[in-house]
Amino acid sequence: MEASKKLVSSVAGCADDTLAGLVACNPGLRLLRGHRVALRTDLAALRGRVALLSGGGSGHEPAHAGYIGKGMLSGVVAGAVFTSPAVGSILAAIRAVTQAGAVGTLLIVKNYTGDRLNFGLALERARAEGADVQMVVVGDDCAFTTQKKAGRRGLCGTVLVHKVAGALAEAGASLDEIVKRVSAVAKAMGTLGLSLSPCSVPGSKPTFQLADDEMELGLGIHGEAGVRRMKVMPADEAVETMLAHMTDPANASHLPLSRGASVVLVVNNLGGLSCLELGIVAGAAVRGLEKRGVRIARALVGSFMTALEMAGVSLTLMLADEELVGLIDAETTAVAWPNLVAGPAVSQRPEVPAPNEGPETAQQAPSTGPGAKWVQLVLERVCSTLLGLQDKLNELDRAAGDGDCGHTHARAARAIQEWVRSRPPPAAPAQLLSALADLLLEKMGGSSGVLYGLFLTAAARPLHNRSDLPTWADAMDAGIEAMQRYGGAAPGDRTMLDSLCAAAQALHALRSPGADLLTVLASAVQSAEAAAEATRHMEAGAGRASYISGDGRRGSTPRVPPMNICGPPELAQSILTRAEGSGGGDWARGEAAGPLGPRPHVKGGCSQP
Amino acid sequence: MEASKKLVSSVAGCADDTLAGLVACNPGLRLLRGHRVALRTDLAALRGRVALLSGGGSGHEPAHAGYIGKGMLSGVVAGAVFTSPAVGSILAAIRAVTQAGAVGTLLIVKNYTGDRLNFGLALERARAEGADVQMVVVGDDCAFTTQKKAGRRGLCGTVLVHKVAGALAEAGASLDEIVKRVSAVAKAMGTLGLSLSPCSVPGSKPTFQLADDEMELGLGIHGEAGVRRMKVMPADEAVETMLAHMTDPANASHLPLSRGASVVLVVNNLGGLSCLELGIVAGAAVRGLEKRGVRIARALVGSFMTALEMAGVSLTLMLADEELVGLIDAETTAVAWPNLVAGPAVSQRPEVPAPNEGPETAQQAPSTGPGAKWVQLVLERVCSTLLGLQDKLNELDRAAGDGDCGHTHARAARAIQEWVRSRPPPAAPAQLLSALADLLLEKMGGSSGVLYGLFLTAAARPLHNRSDLPTWADAMDAGIEAMQRYGGAAPGDRTMLDSLCAAAQALHALRSPGADLLTVLASAVQSAEAAAEATRHMEAGAGRASYISGDGRRGSTPRVPPMNICGPPELAQSILTRAEGSGGGDWARGEAAGPLGPRPHVKGGCSQP
Repeated sequence: MEASKKLVSSVAGCADDTLAGLVACNPGLRLLRGHRVALRTDLAALRGRVALLSGGGSGHEPAHAGYIGKGMLSGVVAGAVFTSPAVGSILAAIRAVTQAGAVGTLLIVKNYTGDRLNFGLALERARAEGADVQMVVVGDDCAFTTQKKAGRRGLCGTVLVHKVAGALAEAGASLDEIVKRVSAVAKAMGTLGLSLSPCSVPGSKPTFQLADDEMELGLGIHGEAGVRRMKVMPADEAVETMLAHMTDPANASHLPLSRGASVVLVVNNLGGLSCLELGIVAGAAVRGLEKRGVRIARALVGSFMTALEMAGVSLTLMLADEELVGLIDAETTAVAWPNLVAGPAVSQRPEVPAPNEGPETAQQAPSTGPGAKWVQLVLERVCSTLLGLQDKLNELDRAAGDGDCGHTHARAARAIQEWVRSRPPPAAPAQLLSALADLLLEKMGGSSGVLYGLFLTAAARPLHNRSDLPTWADAMDAGIEAMQRYGGAAPGDRTMLDSLCAAAQALHALRSPGADLLTVLASAVQSAEAAAEATRHMEAGAGRASYISGDGRRGSTPRVPPMNICGPPELAQSILTRAEGSGGGDWARGEAAGPLGPRPHVKGGCSQP
Repeated sequence: MEASKKLVSSVAGCADDTLAGLVACNPGLRLLRGHRVALRTDLAALRGRVALLSGGGSGHEPAHAGYIGKGMLSGVVAGAVFTSPAVGSILAAIRAVTQAGAVGTLLIVKNYTGDRLNFGLALERARAEGADVQMVVVGDDCAFTTQKKAGRRGLCGTVLVHKVAGALAEAGASLDEIVKRVSAVAKAMGTLGLSLSPCSVPGSKPTFQLADDEMELGLGIHGEAGVRRMKVMPADEAVETMLAHMTDPANASHLPLSRGASVVLVVNNLGGLSCLELGIVAGAAVRGLEKRGVRIARALVGSFMTALEMAGVSLTLMLADEELVGLIDAETTAVAWPNLVAGPAVSQRPEVPAPNEGPETAQQAPSTGPGAKWVQLVLERVCSTLLGLQDKLNELDRAAGDGDCGHTHARAARAIQEWVRSRPPPAAPAQLLSALADLLLEKMGGSSGVLYGLFLTAAARPLHNRSDLPTWADAMDAGIEAMQRYGGAAPGDRTMLDSLCAAAQALHALRSPGADLLTVLASAVQSAEAAAEATRHMEAGAGRASYISGDGRRGSTPRVPPMNICGPPELAQSILTRAEGSGGGDWARGEAAGPLGPRPHVKGGCSQP
């Protein structure tokens, strides 16, 4: 394909289509019949006030139609992409606001020859008709170090001019007052762009090329040449380079910026930069200005004046006293003006102090009862079993996943070993399970750590006040239910739930009065083993892997390796198997056993046939 | 370079840096010490209210920190790029809002396994500490036509859930009420993505490739595979394909949408799509829904939930009754929520009627006095001269510009010929010049048409009330002044101003009482010729060409051909030369001559030495 890929309906219709789209979505806008002009719906509000018109080529959205509204522009005139609008349409817009009762009209124009000429001619024609029209030409570009005959280009700073003029007009200022104030504002601002990519007008190829390791400083919003090509550098250095260039007194177009100055900062996405990068640049800009002793009265971060899909950013600085900041803060209904919180930008805001930790963790005192010894014994046995299975688990996982299941569980086992050897573990079951949850979450990592953490945390809950045998059955159910609820897997999906649920079913026998613990445990292990064996011929049914089967296929090779998010069933089985002979039953039976009370309803449990 | 080009300070620090940047720029936010968590600055406002927390992997900005504020989220927890946040941070956020006095906490989670697990575990832990926490999992993806075990993915619709829950919490609703309402809302929405490009995690290559002529339907916000690859199609067809897929009853994840339904529409930039394209898609979406008999109660257009720099768009539809729309309209201070105007989106808004044309054009009656004949004679001579010079002008322009100067002026000449032959031209000078300005603007086109239009319009002004010889000198000055002011060129820049100014200087002699017109005109022509000759060795000093000399160079070949925006001086000269013998002087002298009055001060005239 010759031209760059675009999502447009027709190359010729781009400017009309996008303006129509914005007007369709914004009840505050109307098109002017026969022209590519958008106007405030509430034109009657202009009676007795100064009207503000702006515009220019399309391709800079949300500029300019996004800035129409009470407190900003009265209307905009749009040209084709990167093309100055027609004189006849500008004149029609002036006539429309004049006939709506505006006492004067200010044209806010970016400094490009075509715009100056076309808005200028429309102004002359309107004046010849008796309208009171003036024009402010914004040239905020700080790129060129030597003075250019054509003056500085108009860039994102124009949006701040819209805002200031809009607030003044809304407050009832006269045309002369607005021109005077806004002209001063336009002189006290600077903008500089930096880009990683070109942009391309619909139907055309990109206007220039940048190497894979290059960025360009100082380019215009139509992709016009900048002042310097540089190797890609870290964002903070790039921002430092921008600020240094913008404020360098040796640069004829610099913004004089002395310590103690106060500015409004705009961090503008030129189109295709990710918002992640934009935020990084914003932070670097705030720090860079603070380093210069500059106060950032307000900071705006977003897409304000774009250059189609250019992956770049521009920084705008406007020197601003309190009064000017007040005009920036003034209310507006323009859809593209951000919901600014009235306050300065600072890189070091006071942090919210870390909250107090939960009561459970705080009261976690070491237990020294006889139970602690049993706990230690059980855990040591579980850990040595897991460590012995490391290679086998890795091997099984290599066939079905990414081959690190053994490593992950060995990591958990070593963490538990270290923990039980460094201090006596809590003997109270709820505290023990919670502590293990903490440990696995922190040391095991990944989905496995979270899944075991969920199981143990939920299992601990029923054991807070009682730890008789039926409650242990409840604990198992609660753990499984939490794993299912958040993990999204169910029995039959070829996850560890298949074994766990089978074991849990068997453990329900603990609820019968007089149940024999070791018999029930042996039956649970048997059930778990059978269930694990049955997974051999199942298809994985949960986790991200399931997205890339069926109609979610992208090409023949799945990008995400099929992964069984709930871990291999062999593991659960093996733990249960080995635990059988570890004396865990005695330990469980050693705790206080209360009467069987009503158990909370466990939703979504192991209801599989 | 291996990884895609990015503007980041360090790959590892991306998530921290962007969150810090957003917090730095937004005084409404604070970081929670020790965690990648942002909270409302005014946490005290949560006392007695339900707190709302959300979050997930970074790379979706402005989600989620952009939605923190009164009326939306209380805080967010951010993971690394495309990685679920840490359980400890989620728990810390819950503790922080709980300790600030919130009566309950709702976690709003997008349906991804990692998020479900981590938020789920934090919830279980917080509950174990006694906090009242609930969780709503949003799965709004309409991509997959068959039911997936993992459920529908959470996409941009989550932002609407934030808004609805935020408005309810701000209004004092209980946690149960919010969960109930929001769960229903989450079920009554659907989202579908379409992209022209992949995205790449910082430090990595793009996650997949799309051919130059392909787009992909139904992908996730991490670049996960979609459901269909398609050849690039026009935007309106692409949108129709999306809407058809989203609402197709044969699609298991479709949104049931019947005629008469009312929806909130979100047209979401997935990151790198130009805002121009976004507006085009928005317009197409409105029309597509209208065609289905659906009312669009509100339409949001912008970047709400991005996938880094993916050049794509997603459409979200939320079924919405009046009450729900009220919650969407409710006030919020969240910076990324748009300044929505409360009203429906419609593709056919009433247009503002075309304004009345100016008084001048309206009263332009044909003149039948003796002057009309002279006018016709002069214009015919000017035109035939221009047509005779066509090839020479093209040749001169080929050396200095794009070689069409002769064509452009021939087009103007033929238009004037046609005009004067079809009806008698106005004899009154002001009306004549204005009519010629209109004609050139419409038929000549380009910068030339506008420059002549400016000259003639401004020159007409002094001639409105008088047309004696001194006033003709004023008219020449006024025309030149307008050309300079808007064109940005000055004498010495090698433009037609060099000749025009020389002639104007000579014409000042007309202000002397008793000046002889033909003598003065002859002197003006001579001056103009000399000035034109002198341009031979000048350097072009105006127009876009001047940007690409000096430090604005991009490589060795300028992309913009050096263009003299004010046209070749030879033209002005030749017109003046030939006009000498055309009887124009008599015509000018034939008009009523009043006394010499004070002339308006003409700024910026031909003051060159």
